[in-house]
Amino acid sequence: MITNSNPYDELMAFQRDTEALEEVAGRLGWDQETMMPEGATDQRAAERAAISKVIHARNTDPQISDWLARAESQDDVAAANLRLIRRNHDKMMKVPARLAAEIASTTSKAQSIWAAARQAEDVSAFLPVLENVVALRKEEAAALADGGDLYDALLDGYEPNTSGARIADMFASMRPRLVALREAVLSAKAPMILSGHFDETMQLQLSAELAQAFGYNLDNGRIDKAVHPFSSGSGQDVRITTRTNPADPFNCFYSTIHEVGHATYEQGIDNAHFLTPLGRGVSLGVHESQSRIYENQLGRSRAFTCWLFTRMTDLFGDFGVPDAETFYHVVNRVNDGFIRTEADELQYNLHIMLRFDLERALMSDDLQVSDLEAAWNDRFLSDFGYAVDKPSNGVLQDVHWSVGLIGYFPTYTLGNVYAGCLHAAMRDALPSLDDDLARGDTSAATAWLRTHVQRHGGLYEPVETIAKAAGITPSHGPLLDYLETKFSDIYGL
Amino acid sequence: MITNSNPYDELMAFQRDTEALEEVAGRLGWDQETMMPEGATDQRAAERAAISKVIHARNTDPQISDWLARAESQDDVAAANLRLIRRNHDKMMKVPARLAAEIASTTSKAQSIWAAARQAEDVSAFLPVLENVVALRKEEAAALADGGDLYDALLDGYEPNTSGARIADMFASMRPRLVALREAVLSAKAPMILSGHFDETMQLQLSAELAQAFGYNLDNGRIDKAVHPFSSGSGQDVRITTRTNPADPFNCFYSTIHEVGHATYEQGIDNAHFLTPLGRGVSLGVHESQSRIYENQLGRSRAFTCWLFTRMTDLFGDFGVPDAETFYHVVNRVNDGFIRTEADELQYNLHIMLRFDLERALMSDDLQVSDLEAAWNDRFLSDFGYAVDKPSNGVLQDVHWSVGLIGYFPTYTLGNVYAGCLHAAMRDALPSLDDDLARGDTSAATAWLRTHVQRHGGLYEPVETIAKAAGITPSHGPLLDYLETKFSDIYGL
Repeated sequence: MITNSNPYDELMAFQRDTEALEEVAGRLGWDQETMMPEGATDQRAAERAAISKVIHARNTDPQISDWLARAESQDDVAAANLRLIRRNHDKMMKVPARLAAEIASTTSKAQSIWAAARQAEDVSAFLPVLENVVALRKEEAAALADGGDLYDALLDGYEPNTSGARIADMFASMRPRLVALREAVLSAKAPMILSGHFDETMQLQLSAELAQAFGYNLDNGRIDKAVHPFSSGSGQDVRITTRTNPADPFNCFYSTIHEVGHATYEQGIDNAHFLTPLGRGVSLGVHESQSRIYENQLGRSRAFTCWLFTRMTDLFGDFGVPDAETFYHVVNRVNDGFIRTEADELQYNLHIMLRFDLERALMSDDLQVSDLEAAWNDRFLSDFGYAVDKPSNGVLQDVHWSVGLIGYFPTYTLGNVYAGCLHAAMRDALPSLDDDLARGDTSAATAWLRTHVQRHGGLYEPVETIAKAAGITPSHGPLLDYLETKFSDIYGL
Repeated sequence: MITNSNPYDELMAFQRDTEALEEVAGRLGWDQETMMPEGATDQRAAERAAISKVIHARNTDPQISDWLARAESQDDVAAANLRLIRRNHDKMMKVPARLAAEIASTTSKAQSIWAAARQAEDVSAFLPVLENVVALRKEEAAALADGGDLYDALLDGYEPNTSGARIADMFASMRPRLVALREAVLSAKAPMILSGHFDETMQLQLSAELAQAFGYNLDNGRIDKAVHPFSSGSGQDVRITTRTNPADPFNCFYSTIHEVGHATYEQGIDNAHFLTPLGRGVSLGVHESQSRIYENQLGRSRAFTCWLFTRMTDLFGDFGVPDAETFYHVVNRVNDGFIRTEADELQYNLHIMLRFDLERALMSDDLQVSDLEAAWNDRFLSDFGYAVDKPSNGVLQDVHWSVGLIGYFPTYTLGNVYAGCLHAAMRDALPSLDDDLARGDTSAATAWLRTHVQRHGGLYEPVETIAKAAGITPSHGPLLDYLETKFSDIYGL
């Protein structure tokens, strides 16, 4: 089928089909969460296993080594494509097929066991399979690491070119300031709490309006409901989901804006990178920087919430919040709570640091799976000042470890840190940003992100991507400055 | 990955993944018609091409010949699986990859050209590419036919184990009786015409009720709207679509019942055949027998329309039809018309016979593409008594030939013929069928079809499947007797 005799072009033609198949596999996941009939579970598992095998076989195809050996890069784009294909192929070749299959089947079972254990508040029911998952991921890490750090080998699968040690240093600087800010805020007088009943159809209507206001292109996307909001797909077909709760419209609105951040990143990548390795977000951290800056620095700003207050009043009438300034405080209210996914932007990173330290200790054998719950509960008490009351509010709350996602959590905070850097640079570049946001106009902000971050896709390494856009070496300084300023202002510290 | 040393089991494990991938490919088609964002066309084409290549490579994998040579069948099911895998593999191996790719790319282009030509009422814009399509399909037929009849080689892809000559004989016996019945009916006094505005949400509500009344299992399916109704998928995930027109609720209701016939066939296949070659409907003709018997012999019966009249009155109030008997006549009204897909059960087969004779003549070189329109118009005038007024009402009305579907049309009438045989046998077996249908209860009828036809899937050859169920060698007699009795009664002939 491949007739072109240039090795680079042959490789890219082969890769294009692999990318297309990965899009198909991703859409099976979307369909499963939104459209699939309940009774189709077994068939879907067989379908996903079959297409995974095909994709794995392509990614480890011996032709790739041959093409890579012969291909020459004429430009930056070709060099980046070759770099990403080589990295992926090398990784895939290091992990024996037997191990990859065992990880897939064990994590698939572990996810169900985790769900049942969480439901039953029974940590001991989950630990044996978690032990297996950790052991298998360690074995994979050893295969990937070439004698290097095991945690770093896994982290590299989500955020290339960083290290656990570097992140640990950064987190160590951030943590005391966040703990102190959190304590100060929670000692101050809290804003009012939103209450009432908000029609779900109208929530969805406003959420679609928000999605488009933030630049989501529905000609290349769609919005459906799902239990857990997510963004799915790259290129011309990037779909998001949202959810509604009649008592909590902010959940719907800010979930939507968050997923729109992910989705517009994918939609904003240069067409030249369509169906190539450069044609998707470069790392989870950079992805999260987009979703977070849309959701928090833009969406939860005083200026934008002023506009949102007016739109909510249009749709829901008087909903008990007297004015825009109070509304801004309500949106940014800091609450005690056990659950990461419900945390505000101040406390969120403390949840991540806890998980990062624990999973890194698991990988280095400084912590045993049998001691994980106690370690979680101690750390939670120390950072948050109150004790975990039940496992579903503690060590059993997240799906990640059950499905083998070790090294994934820190990318959430990396995303917040990157968002802090980008936000500072964007503020310098767009002096009238608040005037725009107060009119519900995000176009200058989203255009800035598209130009400086999104369009590059995988062209540059993650840190390089942020550094080029922000004009500084990424660090946690801007994020912490922003958080301290914002919450000191709201809470009158 | 395959560790079992029994060649049959190895082959079936390989085949199971192929079947799963074919389900995935089919669902991409469903998604394209129901969910896909408009701007994703190019990406979807790349995705479908990529998965088609994967499936083609699997179907022509050299391991299959080896497994087939060594596999032994212990029972009927294994023998049938081996027979179907061998047939498919032999066919795929006979068609050069170059030719298969050329057919795919030419028909893809031809479909757009056809759509534009139909829009512009310009036959000459379509004929050059149709010439290419016919030439390529002839080349494929020659590769498949081993010196046999070219038309039969293509027909076999849709309806195995029959022949153009056999169908031509049958159609020759049917045609005069249908033409005569049609003339008699159209000379008699016609029933009233339904008019009014029927709320589309209520149409969808009643259509979902009809789907479930006819045994469609929504735990393994779903109903969405699409421009052209269709059924998609096998096994645990069989989805249908329908459409609404405020002026014509029958279109929605009978499209739904028709697609439910296809879908319940797939849903009714024994679980033992899940993700094997036996796990889907055995041929297009047998498939159509299920959709037609649901739609016509059951759904348009006097007994069932009596129940439907009551339900429509419940939902829409007085809609201008005075009583159930008049309603039965309205549902079965025979109208002049050019369009196959809008034809009633009496005239439908005349549309098919026209296409069958023309496409068979194209394949045997008795007709040139350049003479196709004139041949169509002559034949239409002769069978229907009035002249085609424009190409979109004539030779440009169907998509089939543009996408290379030659040998496909006769399966529609075969389906009607098979439905006639099954209906006669079902009436003998279920003496109280009309009492059930008058209460909207199709369960005895659908259970009879499930037991006698649907559960077998691909276990028996198509004619054998119908013969076992009907207890007779399939022939057109029962269908024509049924049509003559029904329409003589309605039209007082």
